[in-house]
Amino acid sequence: MNKLAFLALAGSFAASAPAVAQQAEKVDQAMIAKIKDEGLNRSKVMETAFYLTDVCGPRLANSEGLQRANQWTKTQLTKWGLVNANIEPWGDFGRGWDIEKSYVAMTKPYYHAMIGAPKAWTPSTSGPIKKQVVYVKAAAETDLDKYKGQLRDKIVITEVTSPPKAGFEPDAKRYTDEELQKMTAATAGPSARPALSDDAMAAYRARIALRGKITEFLMSEGASAVLSNPRGGSDGTFFTSNGAPYAADTKPVLPEIEMAPEDQLRMIRLVEGGIPVEVEMETITKFQTQDLKGYNVIAEIPGTDRKLKSEIVMLGGHLDSWHAATGATDNAAGCAVMMEAVRILKALNVKPKRTIRIALWGEEEEGLHGSKNYVKNHFGDPATMKMLPDHEKLAGYFNLDNGTGKIRGIYLQGNEAVAPIFTAWLQPFADLGATTITPRNTGGTDHLSFDAIGLPGFQFIQDGLDYGTRTHHTNMDTYERLQPDDLKQASVIVASFVYNTAMRDQKLPRKAMPQPKS
Amino acid sequence: MNKLAFLALAGSFAASAPAVAQQAEKVDQAMIAKIKDEGLNRSKVMETAFYLTDVCGPRLANSEGLQRANQWTKTQLTKWGLVNANIEPWGDFGRGWDIEKSYVAMTKPYYHAMIGAPKAWTPSTSGPIKKQVVYVKAAAETDLDKYKGQLRDKIVITEVTSPPKAGFEPDAKRYTDEELQKMTAATAGPSARPALSDDAMAAYRARIALRGKITEFLMSEGASAVLSNPRGGSDGTFFTSNGAPYAADTKPVLPEIEMAPEDQLRMIRLVEGGIPVEVEMETITKFQTQDLKGYNVIAEIPGTDRKLKSEIVMLGGHLDSWHAATGATDNAAGCAVMMEAVRILKALNVKPKRTIRIALWGEEEEGLHGSKNYVKNHFGDPATMKMLPDHEKLAGYFNLDNGTGKIRGIYLQGNEAVAPIFTAWLQPFADLGATTITPRNTGGTDHLSFDAIGLPGFQFIQDGLDYGTRTHHTNMDTYERLQPDDLKQASVIVASFVYNTAMRDQKLPRKAMPQPKS
Repeated sequence: MNKLAFLALAGSFAASAPAVAQQAEKVDQAMIAKIKDEGLNRSKVMETAFYLTDVCGPRLANSEGLQRANQWTKTQLTKWGLVNANIEPWGDFGRGWDIEKSYVAMTKPYYHAMIGAPKAWTPSTSGPIKKQVVYVKAAAETDLDKYKGQLRDKIVITEVTSPPKAGFEPDAKRYTDEELQKMTAATAGPSARPALSDDAMAAYRARIALRGKITEFLMSEGASAVLSNPRGGSDGTFFTSNGAPYAADTKPVLPEIEMAPEDQLRMIRLVEGGIPVEVEMETITKFQTQDLKGYNVIAEIPGTDRKLKSEIVMLGGHLDSWHAATGATDNAAGCAVMMEAVRILKALNVKPKRTIRIALWGEEEEGLHGSKNYVKNHFGDPATMKMLPDHEKLAGYFNLDNGTGKIRGIYLQGNEAVAPIFTAWLQPFADLGATTITPRNTGGTDHLSFDAIGLPGFQFIQDGLDYGTRTHHTNMDTYERLQPDDLKQASVIVASFVYNTAMRDQKLPRKAMPQPKS
Repeated sequence: MNKLAFLALAGSFAASAPAVAQQAEKVDQAMIAKIKDEGLNRSKVMETAFYLTDVCGPRLANSEGLQRANQWTKTQLTKWGLVNANIEPWGDFGRGWDIEKSYVAMTKPYYHAMIGAPKAWTPSTSGPIKKQVVYVKAAAETDLDKYKGQLRDKIVITEVTSPPKAGFEPDAKRYTDEELQKMTAATAGPSARPALSDDAMAAYRARIALRGKITEFLMSEGASAVLSNPRGGSDGTFFTSNGAPYAADTKPVLPEIEMAPEDQLRMIRLVEGGIPVEVEMETITKFQTQDLKGYNVIAEIPGTDRKLKSEIVMLGGHLDSWHAATGATDNAAGCAVMMEAVRILKALNVKPKRTIRIALWGEEEEGLHGSKNYVKNHFGDPATMKMLPDHEKLAGYFNLDNGTGKIRGIYLQGNEAVAPIFTAWLQPFADLGATTITPRNTGGTDHLSFDAIGLPGFQFIQDGLDYGTRTHHTNMDTYERLQPDDLKQASVIVASFVYNTAMRDQKLPRKAMPQPKS
């Protein structure tokens, strides 16, 4: 899930009453039982997750890790018997970037190895450096004046916006019955595309603009590097992001490390207390500009019905991640589940009427690029609302990208006509905790790319667990955070929904087509 | 609090009914009000804590950090008007040890900077090294056979004993009313010195012995370094300890890093999955053998009563810490509170009848060495039960070493005669949450050194907060973990207890003298 969307999640609901028609929907209970048996008793979802996280490593957009993951998933899907596996370019993205060394330690007033990681797309230091630290505190551009002439050959530290709090609340939570009932009773939003409030958006833009001004100032003053912590964290856990655009023609920036809050705050307190601080650090990062394209990994289980096999059911999640951990919950979890869903179907040797197509998206974190461009290349352009022939062929798209938590239900995404269908499809999974159909929309991830041109794209409701507190975009989004039982549960539900969509007489109902944007 | 004691904390209670006599105890309510006003409204406890943690740094026994803290506390206590401030040697401890560089990263199958810290008293690597990793899994010495000839020039990784769990429970908790009522109603233990169960102690000894055998084996096989995680942790938080004895004549060991569980587990999964892992690392540690002595910092507010000024009220906490963080809750918190207590009393210009003496102990973490030897040097020897003249002079000792949590009451330590006195003394602090007198004993810290020779030494009951989950002996025991309001509350209660003890007609009642150990 990308970051702007995550911020907006809580603000994406609005008022309009659902009108859910009740009608009978056939479910192949024998097949569902087989799917449950395969997925719960012979799961490979954690093995897949191990390869995606530990073996492939961090999977930043257009990084070597993402290339490894593209190759591995293509090979693995083929091994399981899927066909037409392809690492499909979606268009131009930008530079590749990888970390080759990252070391940062305080050397005065005493030695202390610190926890941090280079911000994505930031450059190397000029070899190992050891410099005095200056604390630059700027809430506005004019605050920079007092640092003029003070920063040459200095390592600059900046504010920690949210200091850690004592952990009186658990990191991880599941939805309560009451919360799920509220979601069921909620009203749908008018738009499937959530937005930050105007104030929040203005504040966000102002922060970005100020950050740009600070960077220009630090560059012009000759600072050597920046140590920052823009988003807090606690207990050595910090949030990662990019420190420069990924575009090939980007202006230079300084080397910048995103720091654990405890280490950053210690330096800040020392400097503010009049104690000189010195830091030694070495960052080596590598840019790749030979191939600026972005890619999605695609594979299929071909349809078998003469009339329906040209129609498509899609399922997907994004394969890319941030770079300071192995993107376990964001979103190896979703990809492992989607891969497990097609593995289960192949293991059962299903003969779907429609073609089932899995997509593991690239470059989601920078703005859903992989899925948006795939949709544009294959189905239609939301800017012009000119549709391609396959727009008529897509029966449905299912997405998973809200962490490692099990599925509790599904967001209707404003598509009230699917409510009775999904109600019937969820019924066999009530014993596994998945019961909720909410008229609410949700945003922040790749189903929006489909929804934007009127295609039926859905994201499941997942238990939050520690996604918001500990894992989402942090240096601790590692394999340990994955919950095996949750991922198994999600795999069998997704496999069933996909199978049902592939076998249904009709494609899933659609909402009215959106209007062109301008 | 040292580690063996911490393990034993839960097992330290036993059966014997308290017989608490009720009698009137005078309390100078006007002075208590002044103490509250100074300590709650003009507190310097967080400033003191800042110097102890951030400025002095980690304070391992006989390290440069502890020397800085000894100097700073002596100077600061003198600035506040205490007299006879002294960094007093207590006897021979062992080698000093400091970290000068610590860097560890995985370089294959991809680059990943890891979180870890050298185990105390382990040596440097032979410069920067980059080696293949071998996973040595040994539950018994015979398990080592299969690694013979496999380890030359390798970096060895060992098991993680407790993998992280999802955080469904909060890190930090306070005592509930019900828990406090249980403590009040509890029965006293026959001994103030808690012990591990025989089974737990045997298992602990077996682990230590096996670790020694493994070390010998790895040395003889020519391994280059060890990466370990003997005690789990989560989210980048790991526990620190020593990797070699501090004695000057210790056998050599390998360089060894205590690792964050996530980093260690990733390497283990990769190696077990057949993926070659390579690590680059550089450890530079420095041994100091010029001064092998240990020290306590002592300072006094002299008594003013002609007859009673030769008698002493003591308060203390241990100033030393483990080395991977700044020992904020273990035990800068306790030292800052004790220093704040005497600062409050000096700020109020009290004229105590008895002499008030603060002691900031050294080398607690290795076995209460500082306080044990201070007691032996000044009051008497628990081995022989031969007492020194000052044994008769000590009116009471108060200790604080259970983290940053506020005081909820006090442990009687088997001394039932003090119950009515402490009940009266706590009464003015009921509004601050301190109400509980428990017949229970508690162990693990420096009041035991006094208790061992029949002197009235007490540890307060403190809210646990995140001491057991996140801070105790971890790399995250930093200033952020300190709770300012809790430390202010503790400061005024300690100042009051110390003042009351200094002004009381009689010294605090004592238990019967323990028998010599034989």
